[in-house]
Amino acid sequence: MKSKMRVIVDCDAGADDAMALFLLLAGDANKEIDILAVTCVSGNTGVQNVKINVLRTLQAANRLDIPVFVGADGPLIPPAPTGETSPGYYGYDGFGDADLPDVPDVSLIKGENAIEYLNRITNEKKGQISLICLGPLTNVALAIRTYKQFAQNLKDIFIMGGNYRGVGNSTSAAEFNFYFDPEAAQIVLSSIQCPITIVPWEASLETRLSLEWRFEVLGKLTTPQVQLLNTVERSLHQKKKKKPTQWSASDSLVVAVFLRPSLISKSHKCHLSVELHGHGTRGQAIVDHLQKNDHNSTIIESVNCDMFKELLLWAAGMECFK
Amino acid sequence: MKSKMRVIVDCDAGADDAMALFLLLAGDANKEIDILAVTCVSGNTGVQNVKINVLRTLQAANRLDIPVFVGADGPLIPPAPTGETSPGYYGYDGFGDADLPDVPDVSLIKGENAIEYLNRITNEKKGQISLICLGPLTNVALAIRTYKQFAQNLKDIFIMGGNYRGVGNSTSAAEFNFYFDPEAAQIVLSSIQCPITIVPWEASLETRLSLEWRFEVLGKLTTPQVQLLNTVERSLHQKKKKKPTQWSASDSLVVAVFLRPSLISKSHKCHLSVELHGHGTRGQAIVDHLQKNDHNSTIIESVNCDMFKELLLWAAGMECFK
Amino acid sequence: MKSKMRVIVDCDAGADDAMALFLLLAGDANKEIDILAVTCVSGNTGVQNVKINVLRTLQAANRLDIPVFVGADGPLIPPAPTGETSPGYYGYDGFGDADLPDVPDVSLIKGENAIEYLNRITNEKKGQISLICLGPLTNVALAIRTYKQFAQNLKDIFIMGGNYRGVGNSTSAAEFNFYFDPEAAQIVLSSIQCPITIVPWEASLETRLSLEWRFEVLGKLTTPQVQLLNTVERSLHQKKKKKPTQWSASDSLVVAVFLRPSLISKSHKCHLSVELHGHGTRGQAIVDHLQKNDHNSTIIESVNCDMFKELLLWAAGMECFK
Amino acid sequence: MKSKMRVIVDCDAGADDAMALFLLLAGDANKEIDILAVTCVSGNTGVQNVKINVLRTLQAANRLDIPVFVGADGPLIPPAPTGETSPGYYGYDGFGDADLPDVPDVSLIKGENAIEYLNRITNEKKGQISLICLGPLTNVALAIRTYKQFAQNLKDIFIMGGNYRGVGNSTSAAEFNFYFDPEAAQIVLSSIQCPITIVPWEASLETRLSLEWRFEVLGKLTTPQVQLLNTVERSLHQKKKKKPTQWSASDSLVVAVFLRPSLISKSHKCHLSVELHGHGTRGQAIVDHLQKNDHNSTIIESVNCDMFKELLLWAAGMECFK
Ligand SMILES: [Ca+2]
Ligand SMILES: [Ca+2]
Ligand SMILES: [Ca+2]
Ligand SMILES: [Ca+2]
Repeated sequence: MKSKMRVIVDCDAGADDAMALFLLLAGDANKEIDILAVTCVSGNTGVQNVKINVLRTLQAANRLDIPVFVGADGPLIPPAPTGETSPGYYGYDGFGDADLPDVPDVSLIKGENAIEYLNRITNEKKGQISLICLGPLTNVALAIRTYKQFAQNLKDIFIMGGNYRGVGNSTSAAEFNFYFDPEAAQIVLSSIQCPITIVPWEASLETRLSLEWRFEVLGKLTTPQVQLLNTVERSLHQKKKKKPTQWSASDSLVVAVFLRPSLISKSHKCHLSVELHGHGTRGQAIVDHLQKNDHNSTIIESVNCDMFKELLLWAAGMECFK
Repeated sequence: MKSKMRVIVDCDAGADDAMALFLLLAGDANKEIDILAVTCVSGNTGVQNVKINVLRTLQAANRLDIPVFVGADGPLIPPAPTGETSPGYYGYDGFGDADLPDVPDVSLIKGENAIEYLNRITNEKKGQISLICLGPLTNVALAIRTYKQFAQNLKDIFIMGGNYRGVGNSTSAAEFNFYFDPEAAQIVLSSIQCPITIVPWEASLETRLSLEWRFEVLGKLTTPQVQLLNTVERSLHQKKKKKPTQWSASDSLVVAVFLRPSLISKSHKCHLSVELHGHGTRGQAIVDHLQKNDHNSTIIESVNCDMFKELLLWAAGMECFK
Repeated sequence: MKSKMRVIVDCDAGADDAMALFLLLAGDANKEIDILAVTCVSGNTGVQNVKINVLRTLQAANRLDIPVFVGADGPLIPPAPTGETSPGYYGYDGFGDADLPDVPDVSLIKGENAIEYLNRITNEKKGQISLICLGPLTNVALAIRTYKQFAQNLKDIFIMGGNYRGVGNSTSAAEFNFYFDPEAAQIVLSSIQCPITIVPWEASLETRLSLEWRFEVLGKLTTPQVQLLNTVERSLHQKKKKKPTQWSASDSLVVAVFLRPSLISKSHKCHLSVELHGHGTRGQAIVDHLQKNDHNSTIIESVNCDMFKELLLWAAGMECFK
Repeated sequence: MKSKMRVIVDCDAGADDAMALFLLLAGDANKEIDILAVTCVSGNTGVQNVKINVLRTLQAANRLDIPVFVGADGPLIPPAPTGETSPGYYGYDGFGDADLPDVPDVSLIKGENAIEYLNRITNEKKGQISLICLGPLTNVALAIRTYKQFAQNLKDIFIMGGNYRGVGNSTSAAEFNFYFDPEAAQIVLSSIQCPITIVPWEASLETRLSLEWRFEVLGKLTTPQVQLLNTVERSLHQKKKKKPTQWSASDSLVVAVFLRPSLISKSHKCHLSVELHGHGTRGQAIVDHLQKNDHNSTIIESVNCDMFKELLLWAAGMECFK
């Protein structure tokens, strides 16, 4: 019998991360994978909010047994480019600043530091763990630089972040997760010793779904996970002056690519690095078009959108986790 | 009767520029346009070589009556990124370091500085002149910053240079003409007050022609202009260790877009600027994906390749200029 | 008989520049030097204000016969770092936004562009002209890059600007004249082919005078030039929320060093360049402490302060220019 | 009875660090301080050489009981600016590539990671430990970013590194320890919550000793520690093409300032940060001359040189450690 893939999710939840976690949890419930832990990092919101959001997400899926670890509270080089006083894309608290009931029991959070944990567990299960990164890469970079062997111990890493054609969302040229901590992204890309799969912002743009589908199809499901997402995203939409017209599920996209590689319709290998110093391009990913370096990444360009929607519906509609 | 378009060509010839000049000269012979002058700038080679190459090109077309002016000898901020001692893509002298006979009569070069000329003539013929830029934008930038009114006096400007998806040739992220003088490119894009049409490196890559077509079809024509090009490019190819497999006619492409807009199969408008400070992205063009600024450029994405080849054959085969 | 030194002043007047001009005009009245022209550049205020301020200054000294030329309106790479809507150190108009009578006759301004003039006159009087730069170096940089021979034709150049120990006033690390146009400063330092004397911000700080001396001693003189300065600086002080406690006469300091080299108490030679790319150090001058390049500059560290005050009193008190 | 100061030394030994360690060990032998541990970081040489050099140094002082921990092997953002194949100032191995006998027993090296140790011990002895940093600040930065509370738990920190007047040694503008890992230096300066004392490169230059004193006075002592230093530095000098004429004891200087604050003859407080992005100034420290930020550092400008020499002789001559 083929052994299940072991997974750790590093995230900055974020409504987007919550849907991605539900998708992973469905894979776990379906015996395809084994989620070892969720590690938290600052990004969409501060790491102290992230840990609460992760607990709420696990709670909705009845999986509070999965251990949660807290990592870095901000990028390697402070201050965070998003400032500390303005709300992020998903609001101040990353979950739409909605009135959510049921404060989770934070005593469930593990005392061990996320970076220490990442090193310890990958050392115990060398070459067996897939790391899925849904936020800035601060935790992973700190593990790499603090623990010499960490870079060799992962099986593979899947990253939502960066770009390959200079299309940005935080700035004109840079995607949020890379822009929030460009140094961390560069450390990971230049040092990790395992296959890297990147779902860049361009792939995310290509896979945007209609808001109508989001609320009239996905949103009509009556599971606890959809209820949580609906509460969070409706609160978010009410507060936005400029209503979005499409729905990005970027973090879910990288999970989909991990769980169902057959979704990938176009990808290519290349060497990728990160601009740290430009005035207009800080945080942009640079493709080595001159082919001077060995490939270090597989860039996902596009996926089958219908299969992606089916996968989301499957995960969001899964009645009984466990 | 519709008046002919008045054109000045600013170039760093360069074998590539020579073919583009032949195409423009064909348009002039065909009474479509009126070439007022050629201005020279450093780029593929030093401006003192460029002026010789331009004279040779005009001579082959029997058009030494067109005035030639000499401009800036190097980028605004020295030193040139290409160094001073290594050959450029088109050799040390920009014309493949071939043994060319018939040294042109350099006394034909005008005494007036190219930058002064650009200001004077556009002041005399306000809003009537199209400027076609086939090299680094140093001359144009100097005219803009020295003469306040110059930026308002052009009819339009066509630029071979830059990129819109981060694809580079001088570096992984930057195209040669922009990389050679990023500050000049940024000055032009931010200050010129007329429509800007950009043929970026990506469009050039899409329009590469086969070497077979270049030498077995185009190269078989027996006109003086093809003879010159063949001598130059054969010398070039003999000296290259790594033989190219395709033929770029980037400079001709921007002339083609100018002469025959119907060739354009895809283009879009955007705001474009240039990264001056990045370590890996210096000279890269930045598209304003966040739409924070008004459009300043039309980016040509692709052209009809068959029509482009026909146009080149037409220009190269034109027996009797004048 | 020793021939008089021929001088051109390039300035961004500025109250500071006005005092410096009076000092030069005194030298001219005293038959020590011959002021050929004043060229104007943006800096403390836009060049259209600068030209008015220069005319007012010449008028107060009864020297409207000296030709005035208008040059660049802003730094090489726009936008100006000081913004366009906020007042500079010397107010919006560079002259304290005072109610000044007697609008000068702007038809006195020469039609020839300052950059063209700089090239023409130094070409006519090769190696005979000293250039004194009291503002950003935009005009000089444009002359260097536009006219190949210009860099060889000056006798020497005296620059108020930059620093040698990282002490800034516009930013923590950069002095105003260099910060306003770092690229221009770098072009001048790297390309000019004549002795360069730099009066850096640190020398200016060392030579600050008390406001008491400024108003109770210098300000009590009853000449037209002191009346103009008093009107301008009193208006300035009234508008400042945070009153200065000392008086900087930086521009006069470089003129003093030029007119009376014996004032210099400490100086050294070094190679100087300008940081163009730092986030905190853009515009800072870099001393080549590793001695990898030939010296290109003489840095004035300090002057005799008492002699400097005497010189200012002499110039400001000169009753009858002409 | 006043309790002894508890000290951890973070170093990249380096011959310079060895003398500094002897000085600290003398302070320990003299019951002034209590050295808790030595932590190793890459800098002068790779961390695997550093740990050997530290063991040799402790051995010479008969203090192999002091625990040694290994930390980061290279700067946060690779590659190291010094390259991997060229020797550093102190040779390939940091100890002059001398033929040293007595390979130390590397099993003495602690298994716990230096960064984990720094966090654990300062958490146990909150506010009681002084950290003396003699190399790049990589370990300290990683402890700060990995462990939120670490920045609050030190008593104070003493750093050999950086500059305050733009005087560099690795580059014209940057000092070695800051230049080797500018991001780490910036993290420490911007995040640490305890008094910071900086001995900058300029203070080190002011305190250089003559080589004659080094070899004819200090070098004539017959203790094991001087024997080790003599072997290392003689090997070093033999290999240098350009013999130095003076002897820098920078690392000892910061220890001297720590042990004997009365040596300080001039110092000042300021806000210090590090330029990460400049082309010529990367790694330079920036003093906040505009006073926009609260002071975060005390800069040592100069010390009493005679007292410093006496202190070195005292430490180097101490016959019987323990
Ligand atoms: Ca996320
Ligand atoms: Ca060209
Ligand atoms: Ca001035
Ligand atoms: Ca050291």
